[in-house]
Amino acid sequence: MRNFISVQNVPDIVALLNKAIHIKQNPSEYSVIGKGKTIGLLFMNPSLRTRMSTQRAAYNLGMNVMTVNLDKDSWQLEFGDGAVMNGSTSEHIKEAAGVISQYCDIVGLRSFPGLIDREKDYNEEIFNAFLANLSVPLISLESATLHPLQSFADMITIKEHHRSEQRPKVVLTWAPHIKPLPQAVSNSFAEWSIASGAELVIAHPKGYELDEKFTKGASLITHNQSEALQDADFVYVKNWSSYTDYGAMPEVKENWLLNKSKMELTKQAKIMHCLPVRRNVELSDELIDDPSVSLIQQQAGNRVIAAQTILTEILKEL
Amino acid sequence: MRNFISVQNVPDIVALLNKAIHIKQNPSEYSVIGKGKTIGLLFMNPSLRTRMSTQRAAYNLGMNVMTVNLDKDSWQLEFGDGAVMNGSTSEHIKEAAGVISQYCDIVGLRSFPGLIDREKDYNEEIFNAFLANLSVPLISLESATLHPLQSFADMITIKEHHRSEQRPKVVLTWAPHIKPLPQAVSNSFAEWSIASGAELVIAHPKGYELDEKFTKGASLITHNQSEALQDADFVYVKNWSSYTDYGAMPEVKENWLLNKSKMELTKQAKIMHCLPVRRNVELSDELIDDPSVSLIQQQAGNRVIAAQTILTEILKEL
Amino acid sequence: MRNFISVQNVPDIVALLNKAIHIKQNPSEYSVIGKGKTIGLLFMNPSLRTRMSTQRAAYNLGMNVMTVNLDKDSWQLEFGDGAVMNGSTSEHIKEAAGVISQYCDIVGLRSFPGLIDREKDYNEEIFNAFLANLSVPLISLESATLHPLQSFADMITIKEHHRSEQRPKVVLTWAPHIKPLPQAVSNSFAEWSIASGAELVIAHPKGYELDEKFTKGASLITHNQSEALQDADFVYVKNWSSYTDYGAMPEVKENWLLNKSKMELTKQAKIMHCLPVRRNVELSDELIDDPSVSLIQQQAGNRVIAAQTILTEILKEL
Repeated sequence: MRNFISVQNVPDIVALLNKAIHIKQNPSEYSVIGKGKTIGLLFMNPSLRTRMSTQRAAYNLGMNVMTVNLDKDSWQLEFGDGAVMNGSTSEHIKEAAGVISQYCDIVGLRSFPGLIDREKDYNEEIFNAFLANLSVPLISLESATLHPLQSFADMITIKEHHRSEQRPKVVLTWAPHIKPLPQAVSNSFAEWSIASGAELVIAHPKGYELDEKFTKGASLITHNQSEALQDADFVYVKNWSSYTDYGAMPEVKENWLLNKSKMELTKQAKIMHCLPVRRNVELSDELIDDPSVSLIQQQAGNRVIAAQTILTEILKEL
Repeated sequence: MRNFISVQNVPDIVALLNKAIHIKQNPSEYSVIGKGKTIGLLFMNPSLRTRMSTQRAAYNLGMNVMTVNLDKDSWQLEFGDGAVMNGSTSEHIKEAAGVISQYCDIVGLRSFPGLIDREKDYNEEIFNAFLANLSVPLISLESATLHPLQSFADMITIKEHHRSEQRPKVVLTWAPHIKPLPQAVSNSFAEWSIASGAELVIAHPKGYELDEKFTKGASLITHNQSEALQDADFVYVKNWSSYTDYGAMPEVKENWLLNKSKMELTKQAKIMHCLPVRRNVELSDELIDDPSVSLIQQQAGNRVIAAQTILTEILKEL
Repeated sequence: MRNFISVQNVPDIVALLNKAIHIKQNPSEYSVIGKGKTIGLLFMNPSLRTRMSTQRAAYNLGMNVMTVNLDKDSWQLEFGDGAVMNGSTSEHIKEAAGVISQYCDIVGLRSFPGLIDREKDYNEEIFNAFLANLSVPLISLESATLHPLQSFADMITIKEHHRSEQRPKVVLTWAPHIKPLPQAVSNSFAEWSIASGAELVIAHPKGYELDEKFTKGASLITHNQSEALQDADFVYVKNWSSYTDYGAMPEVKENWLLNKSKMELTKQAKIMHCLPVRRNVELSDELIDDPSVSLIQQQAGNRVIAAQTILTEILKEL
């Protein structure tokens, strides 16, 4: 594997999931594969889970880690071709990426969408600028439209907890929030669920349609949460802002907050969430705190395994 | 040892001090005990000494270190049970601590008091919330009411420099400052001095009484600095704000700034301070800069030994 | 080598350059020389290249690294002798440097000039205060007046790319910018070029004279860019603010932006820049993006080699 930006970079998702399970069972198998290698983790936005889990994964492989808060430790980057840089940007991505490529063997990058200009965000201008100018592999620590390390960890979690021979029925259900969030986790969960062969159902209020590019292949997309929950094995709870009226939060009159009684529609489904979760806004205490239902901590734990597996695959080919 | 939050976590303080001295004399004895282990250092407030000395201690034991400025790199945590999180907090301590427990083998945490709500601070709500939700050991890098790594380093320093067979007479004397400071270092120094068998005398102006919970066992608590200094072996200089009129700075008319002539009352006592010190406000240049009197740098140096000893004790039981 | 603050600390520049070339060809020769040693990198200002390249260099030698943003992670330092610290500074350099010396084996420091008080900046008050109070070696990560790791990397780059038996003709040419920049890179480049035996020509508009202390030994200092460029082998492009009217930006009416036609005056010279560069303000896209002309990325890459060589020299004597 060279870059890890989306599920498209994964040649065989079943094989990758099996590798992850193997690494989880044999955590020290590759404990020196990264010796003498350095990963640079570049953050344009805050991070807790991704920052710590990716660092830990790198340490588990013997790598050195450099963490840079690009927004605070350094200066603002320019992405425009031919720009006359007489404004607030101090360094062009062409220089920055070239330089960073000489200091790091692998680069991780987090860059959230602005949620203002959909075309810019969905063209992944920042990630594509890095990709075009880096000469070392790039791992997404969440881009404008995708969060593949999260989705990979989610798929590992589903694989570990699905107890039937049949393919799992996975429901991605929209949840309320107090401010507009990116669609990245939802887009990414959709494309990974479909690619890994799950039956994916998406439920959301009117106005919250996701980009079809990522949801194509879902069994059902509905505005009816109850319909979606029928016989579900896994219920993935997530807020996102509007893709069509980009970045907006169209009013929602129905109650989309999941609760125990709604969960009775499912096949004793497990609840999933990528975190951070706003308790009693996105998801109720009663569900989060019930260990027989919630897989939230397991997902977070698998973030280390996901990162460690991806790093191992990339290191093998360095 | 499991957690290190206060002197209460120390089963045998004499044995612990002896271990520290041993480690100082044999710094590389445990240089691989932490191999493959990661400590996460979480800062809710600024830090120089604690940040660097704890990192260095961890490196000396072969550990990996992840430093997170929880206030800047990440987002604001919620601590309230049952909170409807529709405000400024983005993640509940229940999730955050659970997640961090999966990424770190040991966690260090710094969280200063707000100095507004005494009950909240003195209940150590933040530390107790971490303790309740972490599944890995927790080391205090200074809490609302205590700073045990500092006090442990102070006790090591006293042990190294006390030249008599008799127990040392240790004076904790209040010093002026320009803004209200926590009582943490003073509380902690008091309980560690008493627990380690020193004769503790505390001197402070009226209105600066400390919580008896920590000072119980002191030989004398007085408003008369000169009385306190009589025959002292060690003089610990520290400002703190009022505990009774919580966080306030009651006016002080007498001159509490220590100087050479006041020191003549002592038994050629050594001066101690936890740093940072505001020169010529808390303590005069003439005392700080006199190497025959000041142990300030030695205390700071012993911060590495203190952290290294505690980490070793915790790692042994992991 | 003990400290690395300026070219004055280099006993034999030819030997040092040869060591750098040797290390570049044998990158793992000293991969354990720093084992068990820790470098503290202290930043009073933002940094990307220096932060990452110095970290990488330290990792390549087996060192541990502690990075501290002194302006954000910690608190403001006092540098005044005898200061009554009742203002915004919380810790005196005397304490801070003493403490840091006990936690680090080597210290790196970045501290930009204020560009207001020339005497203060050119006396290198901050660096000299650290030097006076540290008991471990100090490496400049850019001071008020010098940037020796950059200049050393520049000299390595010139050595690698100079194809003639004759000494290279090196032109340092002023470039436009939108805000006042330090003279540090220019001062440093001048003294290193002269010390390494190059023929140095400096070109700048009136009012931008550099301190003679650093430029003494240059073959020519001119206000005529074309005159300077004649037969140049290397053209180093850099903006700086006025030294005489300290920190000001005297108006410049001529066009100092370098372009391809101006470069025809040279002996097919290579272009150099320390980065970050403001494209089409300091230097045009056509020059930066032409790999047959630009050595900019090579300079940045050599930052690791420069730091690694200096660290090796210092570690050998620890």
